[in-house]
Amino acid sequence: MDSYSKLENSLIESGTMLCVGLDTDLAKLPKGIASNLTGMLEFNRIIINATQDLTAAYKINYAFYEQYGHEGFRIIEQTMNLIPQSKFIIADAKRGDIGNTSRSYAKACFEALNSDAITVNPYMGSDSVKPFLEYSDKMVFLLALTSNPGSSDFQRLKVDNDYLYQHVIEVSSKWADYKNLGYVIGATHPDELRTIRKTIPSNPLLIPGVGTQGGDIDGVLSANNGGVALINVSRDIIFAGADSDFANQVRIKAEFYKSKLKWQ
Amino acid sequence: MDSYSKLENSLIESGTMLCVGLDTDLAKLPKGIASNLTGMLEFNRIIINATQDLTAAYKINYAFYEQYGHEGFRIIEQTMNLIPQSKFIIADAKRGDIGNTSRSYAKACFEALNSDAITVNPYMGSDSVKPFLEYSDKMVFLLALTSNPGSSDFQRLKVDNDYLYQHVIEVSSKWADYKNLGYVIGATHPDELRTIRKTIPSNPLLIPGVGTQGGDIDGVLSANNGGVALINVSRDIIFAGADSDFANQVRIKAEFYKSKLKWQ
Repeated sequence: MDSYSKLENSLIESGTMLCVGLDTDLAKLPKGIASNLTGMLEFNRIIINATQDLTAAYKINYAFYEQYGHEGFRIIEQTMNLIPQSKFIIADAKRGDIGNTSRSYAKACFEALNSDAITVNPYMGSDSVKPFLEYSDKMVFLLALTSNPGSSDFQRLKVDNDYLYQHVIEVSSKWADYKNLGYVIGATHPDELRTIRKTIPSNPLLIPGVGTQGGDIDGVLSANNGGVALINVSRDIIFAGADSDFANQVRIKAEFYKSKLKWQ
Repeated sequence: MDSYSKLENSLIESGTMLCVGLDTDLAKLPKGIASNLTGMLEFNRIIINATQDLTAAYKINYAFYEQYGHEGFRIIEQTMNLIPQSKFIIADAKRGDIGNTSRSYAKACFEALNSDAITVNPYMGSDSVKPFLEYSDKMVFLLALTSNPGSSDFQRLKVDNDYLYQHVIEVSSKWADYKNLGYVIGATHPDELRTIRKTIPSNPLLIPGVGTQGGDIDGVLSANNGGVALINVSRDIIFAGADSDFANQVRIKAEFYKSKLKWQ
């Protein structure tokens, strides 16, 4: 099954747009979980068990694993083996380089790790993104307007009458079908999201920034206007509990987000 | 010693601005080297032995290793152990994410792997770059005008009277001292390089795109105007020979580039 169909199925089967972000930070692990790589994997196992019937997707934030070198990278692989096959998996790696190098990053994500989708940075232009799009059964989420304060520095610069992020969407949306190419739009920008949804009603969106980053859920849902989207929550779910019963707290938080982020 | 001093020393001691790029592609390994990860490390060992007195620096292109998952990532670590301590090492990883995530990428590069510098993508703005700059004894090379054809898609968009890449340089050069912050400028753009050097005479530049990508060496040297810079050559050196005597061919190519790219 191609990844776009898997995304649609995950949304329908789970009934939610929730994506759980596995930003597993050793410094924040709850009581009873060892603060080492064994603990990291054990924590992910518990989080996945506690949330798999409540989420459409998981997003793996590569940085939190890479910081421990190849042993951390191995935890990514082991974590992916714990995620049920029906769930959509996003490699949140923010990659992008010249053509022959992007080809290797695409191979890393789609072959070595068999993710359904990867986040890609558009700054280096078409030949840096196309090697990812050549995997026609997989998906790219291209960064457009990100959730962080620094999104104002360059993404919101005026280019002719548009902002840079609008220009990125306009140009790149011609590179591939909506079934292969989605965009990252931060939940912290609901007004811009509303406008973007009018331009690209069909491209899937990955919307991070709800929860700890402060994005407003109702504003985001209204602005998204029923389009195919995953709304990511990381820290607010996975670190919901600090004690040995944390799996229950995680489940309560995930249930809350599942019901707020209904897919219908 | 901080990385900027190490860069200056490497230039002086080696007498060249050459940086050898370890874009080790299993499909291109010479005869006699096994096309697997053991061969990859063995190849890197031979390349490093053949070039270490001819180069100021090595650049490790993460993609070529990551495509083999955690075992590939391990080859990065093992390769770094083969490089003499006096040589400047660049993690060519093109990272960048929201603040807390960039902090982990910085830790990956500067602590887990102890690189001197990392390439960072500016698209996500200040809070995505600053966690790297907080390692005040290390260096960032921020992507400005890259060597690939796609650099025209967004980097050359007009923002007010400047191009986007000029704006990136102007804004970001206020984030840190030139000893911490350099820029990636493709050798395929000598005219733009000349103008950039007038704006930022002191920031170190990482200039890829000479060799296989077709950048003109004399044009680049003239445009750089004697500034602190590393000029990277990857494929044209490391894949100079296809037979079992490839180390000699590699050495001849590296000698050629060393003498063309004199540091004085």
